[in-house]
Amino acid sequence: MKGGGAGGGASEMLPMMDINLHFNGDFHAVSSAHNLLAAMVDNHLHHGNALGIDSRRVTWKRVVDMNDRALRDIIIGLGGRTEGIPRESGFDITAASEVMAVLCLADGIQDLKTRLGRIVVGYRTDGTPVTAKDLGAVGAMAALLKEAVKPNLVQTTEGVPAFVHGGPFANIAHGTNTINATKAALAYADIVVTEAGFAFELGAEKFFDINCQYGGFAPACTVLVATIRALKMHGGKPLAEVSKPDVEAMTRGLLQHGEAPREHHKFGQDCVVAINRFPTDTAKEEVEPQMHCEALGLKGVVAETFSEGRQGLHRAGRSRARPGRPDRAGFTPLYDWNDSIENKIATVAREMYGAVAVDYTARGKRDRLQLEKAGFGKLPVCIAKTQQSLSDNPALLGRPKDFLVTVREIQLAAGAGFIIPITGEILRMPGLPKVPMASRFDLSDEGEVLFSRP
Amino acid sequence: MKGGGAGGGASEMLPMMDINLHFNGDFHAVSSAHNLLAAMVDNHLHHGNALGIDSRRVTWKRVVDMNDRALRDIIIGLGGRTEGIPRESGFDITAASEVMAVLCLADGIQDLKTRLGRIVVGYRTDGTPVTAKDLGAVGAMAALLKEAVKPNLVQTTEGVPAFVHGGPFANIAHGTNTINATKAALAYADIVVTEAGFAFELGAEKFFDINCQYGGFAPACTVLVATIRALKMHGGKPLAEVSKPDVEAMTRGLLQHGEAPREHHKFGQDCVVAINRFPTDTAKEEVEPQMHCEALGLKGVVAETFSEGRQGLHRAGRSRARPGRPDRAGFTPLYDWNDSIENKIATVAREMYGAVAVDYTARGKRDRLQLEKAGFGKLPVCIAKTQQSLSDNPALLGRPKDFLVTVREIQLAAGAGFIIPITGEILRMPGLPKVPMASRFDLSDEGEVLFSRP
Amino acid sequence: MKGGGAGGGASEMLPMMDINLHFNGDFHAVSSAHNLLAAMVDNHLHHGNALGIDSRRVTWKRVVDMNDRALRDIIIGLGGRTEGIPRESGFDITAASEVMAVLCLADGIQDLKTRLGRIVVGYRTDGTPVTAKDLGAVGAMAALLKEAVKPNLVQTTEGVPAFVHGGPFANIAHGTNTINATKAALAYADIVVTEAGFAFELGAEKFFDINCQYGGFAPACTVLVATIRALKMHGGKPLAEVSKPDVEAMTRGLLQHGEAPREHHKFGQDCVVAINRFPTDTAKEEVEPQMHCEALGLKGVVAETFSEGRQGLHRAGRSRARPGRPDRAGFTPLYDWNDSIENKIATVAREMYGAVAVDYTARGKRDRLQLEKAGFGKLPVCIAKTQQSLSDNPALLGRPKDFLVTVREIQLAAGAGFIIPITGEILRMPGLPKVPMASRFDLSDEGEVLFSRP
Amino acid sequence: MKGGGAGGGASEMLPMMDINLHFNGDFHAVSSAHNLLAAMVDNHLHHGNALGIDSRRVTWKRVVDMNDRALRDIIIGLGGRTEGIPRESGFDITAASEVMAVLCLADGIQDLKTRLGRIVVGYRTDGTPVTAKDLGAVGAMAALLKEAVKPNLVQTTEGVPAFVHGGPFANIAHGTNTINATKAALAYADIVVTEAGFAFELGAEKFFDINCQYGGFAPACTVLVATIRALKMHGGKPLAEVSKPDVEAMTRGLLQHGEAPREHHKFGQDCVVAINRFPTDTAKEEVEPQMHCEALGLKGVVAETFSEGRQGLHRAGRSRARPGRPDRAGFTPLYDWNDSIENKIATVAREMYGAVAVDYTARGKRDRLQLEKAGFGKLPVCIAKTQQSLSDNPALLGRPKDFLVTVREIQLAAGAGFIIPITGEILRMPGLPKVPMASRFDLSDEGEVLFSRP
Repeated sequence: MKGGGAGGGASEMLPMMDINLHFNGDFHAVSSAHNLLAAMVDNHLHHGNALGIDSRRVTWKRVVDMNDRALRDIIIGLGGRTEGIPRESGFDITAASEVMAVLCLADGIQDLKTRLGRIVVGYRTDGTPVTAKDLGAVGAMAALLKEAVKPNLVQTTEGVPAFVHGGPFANIAHGTNTINATKAALAYADIVVTEAGFAFELGAEKFFDINCQYGGFAPACTVLVATIRALKMHGGKPLAEVSKPDVEAMTRGLLQHGEAPREHHKFGQDCVVAINRFPTDTAKEEVEPQMHCEALGLKGVVAETFSEGRQGLHRAGRSRARPGRPDRAGFTPLYDWNDSIENKIATVAREMYGAVAVDYTARGKRDRLQLEKAGFGKLPVCIAKTQQSLSDNPALLGRPKDFLVTVREIQLAAGAGFIIPITGEILRMPGLPKVPMASRFDLSDEGEVLFSRP
Repeated sequence: MKGGGAGGGASEMLPMMDINLHFNGDFHAVSSAHNLLAAMVDNHLHHGNALGIDSRRVTWKRVVDMNDRALRDIIIGLGGRTEGIPRESGFDITAASEVMAVLCLADGIQDLKTRLGRIVVGYRTDGTPVTAKDLGAVGAMAALLKEAVKPNLVQTTEGVPAFVHGGPFANIAHGTNTINATKAALAYADIVVTEAGFAFELGAEKFFDINCQYGGFAPACTVLVATIRALKMHGGKPLAEVSKPDVEAMTRGLLQHGEAPREHHKFGQDCVVAINRFPTDTAKEEVEPQMHCEALGLKGVVAETFSEGRQGLHRAGRSRARPGRPDRAGFTPLYDWNDSIENKIATVAREMYGAVAVDYTARGKRDRLQLEKAGFGKLPVCIAKTQQSLSDNPALLGRPKDFLVTVREIQLAAGAGFIIPITGEILRMPGLPKVPMASRFDLSDEGEVLFSRP
Repeated sequence: MKGGGAGGGASEMLPMMDINLHFNGDFHAVSSAHNLLAAMVDNHLHHGNALGIDSRRVTWKRVVDMNDRALRDIIIGLGGRTEGIPRESGFDITAASEVMAVLCLADGIQDLKTRLGRIVVGYRTDGTPVTAKDLGAVGAMAALLKEAVKPNLVQTTEGVPAFVHGGPFANIAHGTNTINATKAALAYADIVVTEAGFAFELGAEKFFDINCQYGGFAPACTVLVATIRALKMHGGKPLAEVSKPDVEAMTRGLLQHGEAPREHHKFGQDCVVAINRFPTDTAKEEVEPQMHCEALGLKGVVAETFSEGRQGLHRAGRSRARPGRPDRAGFTPLYDWNDSIENKIATVAREMYGAVAVDYTARGKRDRLQLEKAGFGKLPVCIAKTQQSLSDNPALLGRPKDFLVTVREIQLAAGAGFIIPITGEILRMPGLPKVPMASRFDLSDEGEVLFSRP
Repeated sequence: MKGGGAGGGASEMLPMMDINLHFNGDFHAVSSAHNLLAAMVDNHLHHGNALGIDSRRVTWKRVVDMNDRALRDIIIGLGGRTEGIPRESGFDITAASEVMAVLCLADGIQDLKTRLGRIVVGYRTDGTPVTAKDLGAVGAMAALLKEAVKPNLVQTTEGVPAFVHGGPFANIAHGTNTINATKAALAYADIVVTEAGFAFELGAEKFFDINCQYGGFAPACTVLVATIRALKMHGGKPLAEVSKPDVEAMTRGLLQHGEAPREHHKFGQDCVVAINRFPTDTAKEEVEPQMHCEALGLKGVVAETFSEGRQGLHRAGRSRARPGRPDRAGFTPLYDWNDSIENKIATVAREMYGAVAVDYTARGKRDRLQLEKAGFGKLPVCIAKTQQSLSDNPALLGRPKDFLVTVREIQLAAGAGFIIPITGEILRMPGLPKVPMASRFDLSDEGEVLFSRP
């Protein structure tokens, strides 16, 4: 369902294997900074708990850059009075760390430290929050991130420069690369392309409403990338058969998503639909969507980035009638941060997902009230929702109608600077399949990583 | 009690702060390889446990490069039938990982993979071991270590080249740097100095009996480094007062350790005693030990490496009467690996520590029998003992007499290639003090790490 | 909210304190039988698990006759390979034990053993259930219950004989006394009064649809007992003020519950509304409801059982126009056991609670399908619902309209012979208040229990 | 290894099955009182912990009258901030409850309440103890014990009256029946026989040094009961063969225990050795020990209580030369309660077990110092030791020499009024065997308990 993180074909980034392994150690640095804070929390509890933290309300977990199901729910601090305070906790995957989100949204070292300091690690029995700053952890966390804050410059097989920097979980965080990298790119290149993953209603919405706002920049043009296969799936074709030609299913899928472009207009954006060409796609399948796009008042193009690299993309770009121009850069946010939490969530759910209303569980409601009471009501909302449906139910494909979105709880990322309404089951720590991919890797005697495809 | 890991004064290694933070990521790579194996163990238990591992006898824990007391004893796999198998486990510090020991003892990639494959992660109910190879984890672990196996070359402030590579816990593992680094140094330099930390009876014994044997090399000369302050402490001076001059206490300490040189003879080694000069040492304190060394038939020199760098060391080297020569390199091991576990432990305890005998708890005895039965009886013994006393009781300073060494349990490091008799309380995961050092760090706006001394 | 279990005033049962403490040990016997089965489950897991039970799917918990919050969620089997298999479990209060329900529904020793044997303790990985019979626990459990199956005969302060036997939790079980006791009473007395607690839509529904069906008996007349205070509360008066006279609130409450009698007609029952007189009630408050009852076509009487004992009740009985006669005994069940689980739940929710529909969580739906697949679809439904509202939301007083009932999960009590659809938060283990009632008890030097009221 | 608790043969007590099942509910009452205190401890922690108890230093566990291995080590209080405070704890078997010991040693209701109030449930971070009285639990605990404090009178098959009252674990507590029962018996009978189980050096020592002291009574004569089979085992015969005649092994066993009678003299007691006759014993085996006893200056008799009841015992009694007379009642305690803990333990170990010295683990030493500091140094010592050897090593049979006794920890039973030095591995919660005895029980249709022997 998800590809690798280093592109592919003629646009693959180099050194691919290193990017996918430790790369420059950014994830390790994020893990270390995150876990240092966790160790300081438990150490504080152990040494008398001067801040009066309620050990049952510590919300700061630990992270590891590993799919490790058995660490999701754990009990720590066991072994008696020299070994810490027993409490329930767990590990998330590093990409789900708030430190990762902080790193991505920080605009320089001062801002990094400010955001780290605001991180809420838990609550006292009276409900007041305790922060990383209260624990004196900010300086050391920043020191551990001193290299990680610098963007990593790589290139594609063709030599196109690319920044690879930051990896926040796109379903529970804002999902885009660092503001630092985008700003560095804007300083050196005529055209900067950035990715907002996990579909328009998740990735793009968060890019506009959170990332652009904190970064102080705006896009000149929005490109919506789609694959013929995905359109067929949303048109009702079973997943196993999406590689087979089926113009009708594809057209159904496209029409069902026909309202999506109108969503772009909500942000005041020009929009191009780029068909991400795959070897299995037929010519007819490529022509149809372009025609349908025209009918919907959109520009539709075929992008052959995978097979032809920048030439393929360039050709797609040229075919665009009215190119986005820097002087036209700008966008209209979907909601006002100063609105109530309830309204902000309702706006996104209605305008982006097409929901008729938002429901709250008892816990969701309690969280909302507590966050507003504690002064976090003016933060933007970074809704955690499945990427497999426009609704919060992964089984509803196409363009579902007449559905409610249910907010189960609302988490706080005070450091990153947003709150996270949770809809549906969101996993912060994946598990491995029965035969893990790891069992297919090897290292040759010459030190080269080998991978044997199934 | 322990200094930093990057030397000091004129011999400080550069870039000091980077060496002490993430450096080249070797520790992160070791953590990742270690934790990948752990995740694969629990994943195997979760997906039907085809290998029949007894979940209560999984010995492979997880590691993190953090002093995190609350992770010593934990319960994992909680949350119901989709979340793994509940079991007791814990985290060690990365330096205590067997993968670290494997990395240090591996002589090339093939040997690395062989050792990784031999790692025992747990046992079946019938007592037979299950290895990393059985789980198909070797290739991926090796891939994660592909950069970490390469020695890291740094230099001192004076430009003296130095390899910094590997960091196995010296009290529970063999405590010396990688065989790869030593061999690389031997290929390029006339004289290679390597360190075997945590006192002669721990560091040197393991260096000779384990490291040299696996590496196939031998030293031409052994230098025993001592500080005036340590001698005073072993001579009965309270720790708080060791900076004050006290020739008598120092002499007492020296004489009590007077048998140590004889221990060198047990390995067939020439030996020099180097007094590691500190600013607080007085001239008289420096002269005395040299004289006493002479009386004991040893060469005693003052090494001013800290204040004068290579010049200080060179002067000390020159004063040595009969320099070690490569053609004279060689040593006599203390015991024969083919001897019984009982005899091997008894030999080290008697000859190195001066114990009158070795006692076993019920568990220690059971472990010994099981290891011999399972075919691990011919491995060398890497005894885990406190570094604060020649005995296994940290309170016995000086040269204790008439003491027993008690073996509480014997752990297996089949991948590293040794067994670990545990004497006394050995912590594999340190805790933070009430005010952690971390709270003294900061990152300047220019990206420099700042440290405020107390 | 709940009174003691031994009546009060002129109808208090003797020996009151003994009934409320250990009485004849029935609860202890139930606890012992329940916990023996639990010990045998874990012992079976420990000794090789020949039945192949999935340790994460053991549903049989332990019980204790104590409000002990800290035992709700626990982890057992810790301590290594000689100490059992680690797993998540917990304690319920003894009244919530399925063994208690079995004891109450068993019609003789053979039936007791049959029901005990059917108890499902957990599931294999393939989803098949494992029973108490599979574990060979039935005989010993029955032996432990050998005295507990015999009804306990006590008397009121006036000498009226009364059986006190069995105490199943009325919100998660069927809530009425043992079939054995009812049958013994029917054999000796002209008129037998039995109680079906926790309001008509819970207690009476379960009495008719489960208890009468298993017992093979039926009531000649149904008496609905109400207090003036409860009517006022349902009429909108705050709980703290219900002791103050307020005829209007009472009338509102009565009218809102005006449909309830029609519910009786659903079971084909004659019905009398008995106003349970309290000292704080005013005469006017007593007259009104009788008048309103008449208007609704019901007989309303004032029962002064508390202050006058059997005389008070007798007077109420006399005033009844058409007394229930044994020859008219009988009732129409609300649903057919052979109907689908979905329909049975929907019928009760619609007809008894007044819900417009039944919603299922993902888990509730999965449970329903699995129970039907496993052959438990023909069991009656013993819905667990709050007793504080006709709906599943404790905050909705009076006669709520337009509400859904949400089934969160469905538990199986195969031994008792019903399934338990859980709606809302149902606690099987209460907690103690900040100042527990226990702190008010004492034992005099003469061995008498003393209780000091706050 | 251990028989039932209701005697056997002609001396079996009636109703045997009821005595072995719930009897009069004393064990249930002890469990309830014990667990009420536990619930109040955790409730106190949950509701703000006004007493400042360190949750990691709560020593009060819970009890259940069941062999339930999986409850030995558990974690309680899980589930979040409404569910108590997470902490490590466990269950002991009811016989190991300090409340049981309190019940046995209490001399009336006032004393019962005083002792209950003194029970230490845990410690504050400053090391000061917190008691049941501090928690306000004493009155309710006493109320729950109001019937249990009354001795239970039963009779043997012959009609001999017998009190069955109290059942403290003989290896970790004092092991004799209640002082209340003994005093009741002394008030009504000419001769009272009481049992001090688990061998002379455990049962008798504690009876003299603890029970008699608290009860204010003393025996007129001490009878040491031995079986021919046990003598053969201590004489070196394997357990499987002790039913076969072997006069030599028996004689060896007897002579090795020859010093035991001298131990009686240490208490100033007359002593008779009674050979507890078994059907498999041969005549020659019975004659020999009597002769050897004579040689050792003791009276040896054969007691046929099993086969002949009181007649068998009477015959043995008659053969005694100088019967114990009430006017000669009295004894010399082994140690003075006012002596130091160290001396008291050393005296018992030396005089009773024959140890050369007492060793302490680090924890044992720490416990000793803390108990003395906290004012518990004047309590008698109730040493927990295996009953399978005179030493603390179950494998040393016969009369071991030259052994140390190692004190691993010292527990406090401030309510019972003694401290418990733990030597060796003492289990407070047994486990079930692979095929539990429970699987052999059944209940007939007539309500009779059936037991099928293997």
